[in-house]
Amino acid sequence: MRARQISVVGSGSEWEAQAEQVGRLLAGRGCTVVTGGGDEVMAAAARGARQAGGRTVGILPGESPSAANEWIDFAVATGAGHARNLAVAASGEAVIAVGGSWGTLSEIAFARRLGRPVVVLGGGPEVEGEGIARATSPEQAVELALSALES
Amino acid sequence: MRARQISVVGSGSEWEAQAEQVGRLLAGRGCTVVTGGGDEVMAAAARGARQAGGRTVGILPGESPSAANEWIDFAVATGAGHARNLAVAASGEAVIAVGGSWGTLSEIAFARRLGRPVVVLGGGPEVEGEGIARATSPEQAVELALSALES
Amino acid sequence: MRARQISVVGSGSEWEAQAEQVGRLLAGRGCTVVTGGGDEVMAAAARGARQAGGRTVGILPGESPSAANEWIDFAVATGAGHARNLAVAASGEAVIAVGGSWGTLSEIAFARRLGRPVVVLGGGPEVEGEGIARATSPEQAVELALSALES
Amino acid sequence: MRARQISVVGSGSEWEAQAEQVGRLLAGRGCTVVTGGGDEVMAAAARGARQAGGRTVGILPGESPSAANEWIDFAVATGAGHARNLAVAASGEAVIAVGGSWGTLSEIAFARRLGRPVVVLGGGPEVEGEGIARATSPEQAVELALSALES
Repeated sequence: MRARQISVVGSGSEWEAQAEQVGRLLAGRGCTVVTGGGDEVMAAAARGARQAGGRTVGILPGESPSAANEWIDFAVATGAGHARNLAVAASGEAVIAVGGSWGTLSEIAFARRLGRPVVVLGGGPEVEGEGIARATSPEQAVELALSALES
Repeated sequence: MRARQISVVGSGSEWEAQAEQVGRLLAGRGCTVVTGGGDEVMAAAARGARQAGGRTVGILPGESPSAANEWIDFAVATGAGHARNLAVAASGEAVIAVGGSWGTLSEIAFARRLGRPVVVLGGGPEVEGEGIARATSPEQAVELALSALES
Repeated sequence: MRARQISVVGSGSEWEAQAEQVGRLLAGRGCTVVTGGGDEVMAAAARGARQAGGRTVGILPGESPSAANEWIDFAVATGAGHARNLAVAASGEAVIAVGGSWGTLSEIAFARRLGRPVVVLGGGPEVEGEGIARATSPEQAVELALSALES
Repeated sequence: MRARQISVVGSGSEWEAQAEQVGRLLAGRGCTVVTGGGDEVMAAAARGARQAGGRTVGILPGESPSAANEWIDFAVATGAGHARNLAVAASGEAVIAVGGSWGTLSEIAFARRLGRPVVVLGGGPEVEGEGIARATSPEQAVELALSALES
C-alpha cells in the first residue's frame, strides 16, 4: 500500500528549522513528504524527512528534474510554472504551510478548494476559514494534520 | 494597439449585480474584460461589459470553448482545470475580485505573486497585503484598479 | 453569437507567407484566429487575419500578455509553458498546422486527442491518422478545415 | 543521489506484457519508472518495476492521488488534465513509448521538444525524427534509452 502523502509548502529562510522538524516528524509517522522541490522551506522539509528515513517527492515548476534540491528522492518536472502549485496542493492528503507568501497562499487556497485539510504554522499567510487550523509548533502542526485525516 | 485587459474574478450569485456593474464600467473605460468564463460573477461581469459595448475573454477550465457563458466573445479552453486560475490572474493587468471563495483566493494570490494590483470588492476572501486594495462599490473598484496601473 | 474559432499552429519563417494567407482566408470566412501568440507562423497568421478585418487571440506560454505579437487583439498569458499547447489545440474547433516541429506535433496530437479535425499544410510534421487531412495550399487548408466542421 | 528516472508512456491492453517487461528491466538497471499513473501500459510498466524491486512514480491528470494504479509508490495529482503529459515527458531523462495513440504522441512530441531521447517500441505512433529510435523488443528499448543517456 502507498504511504500517506502530506504536502509541506512555504518559504522564508527563517522558517527552515521548523520546516525541517515538520519533515522529520512526518517521516517518523510513515508519511511521504511532498514539496515544491525548491529551496528554503521546501528543502528543509525534505531534508528533515530524509534524516528520519522518509521518502520525498518534489514537484517542480520547471522542465528539468535535476533542478530539485538534493533531498528529493523523486523529482517531477511539470514545466507548468506556478501552475504546479495546484499539483503540490492536490498531491497531499493534507497540507502544512510553514511561513510563505503569495505562492504559499495559492497552494493553501487550492488545497481548500479541493477539500484538503490545511495547517498553518505561525508566520504563514493571514488566511482563515473552514478547514484551516493554526499551529504554534511543528509537533502540533503534524498532529493537527494527521488527526484531520482520521476524522 | 491592444486594449487594456482587466480580469474580474469571484463567485456567488449575490454578487452578480455588482460584478455586472464592474464589467460595464470597465468596458466604458475601454478595457477588455477577462474572466474564467463560467457562471455567476464571471457571467455577470461579461454581461455588463457587453452591454456597454465592450469585449470579453473567457478562460475556461475545461476542454471545450462552447462551455463559455453567452457573453464571452473569445473563449479559451485551457483543459487545465483549476490551473487555469493562473491564466486568469496573469492575463489581466489588474484583477478585481467580487465575492468569491477559495478559487478566487487562489487567483488573488497568483495575481500578487505576479505583481498585478488587486482590488477586492466587499465580500471577497479575507486577504490583506501589499498591492491589495479594498473597495466598497463597483465605481471605486474600477477606479482603484485603473489608477494602480497609472502609477 | 460567438464567432467560430480556428487555431493556426506551426513555426518556421519560410512558412510565414502561407500562414498569413491562411489567417486572411479564415478572417474572410468570419472566423476568429487563435494562435500561440508568438512569432513566425503565429504572427503571420494573426497579421493576415487582421488585414482581412478579423479578430485574433494569442495563448502565450509566459506570464505576461504584453509578450504577444502586435497582431494579437486578445492575449491570454497562461504561465504554463509548453502546457499551453493544449489550450491552443482545445480552443479551436479545428486546427490548421503550417510548417512546425515538435511543439506543433504536440498541438496536433492534443487536437486529435480532443477530436478536433486537423489540416496539415505541406511541410508540417510527418503525421498521419484519422482526422488529419493534408493540404497543398492555404485555400485548400481553410476549405478542408471548415468543411470538416460542417459534416 | 537520486536514481535515474525513465518515463514509460503508451496505451493499449495488447502492449501490457511488453510494458511490464520494460518496467522490470528498467528497475533492474536501478531506474525509477515514471508513468501517467493510469491503466494498461502505465499500470503494466509500474507492475513490472515493482516486481523487480524498483520504485514507481505516477503523474495523474486528476486531482486525487488515490486514482493511481496500485503499483504506483508515489502519486502526483496534477489536476491539469492532458497538460500533465508535459510533466510525464519532462520527468524522465529518456522516454520509452509502448503502443499508444494521440496522447502518447503528445508525450513523444514534448519529450523531443525538451531534448529527451525517445525510444518507440513497435506499435506506437508513426513518428520519426532526430532523437527517436525504434526498438523491436523490451530489451532493445531499454538498452537504446540508457545508451542514449551515456553519449
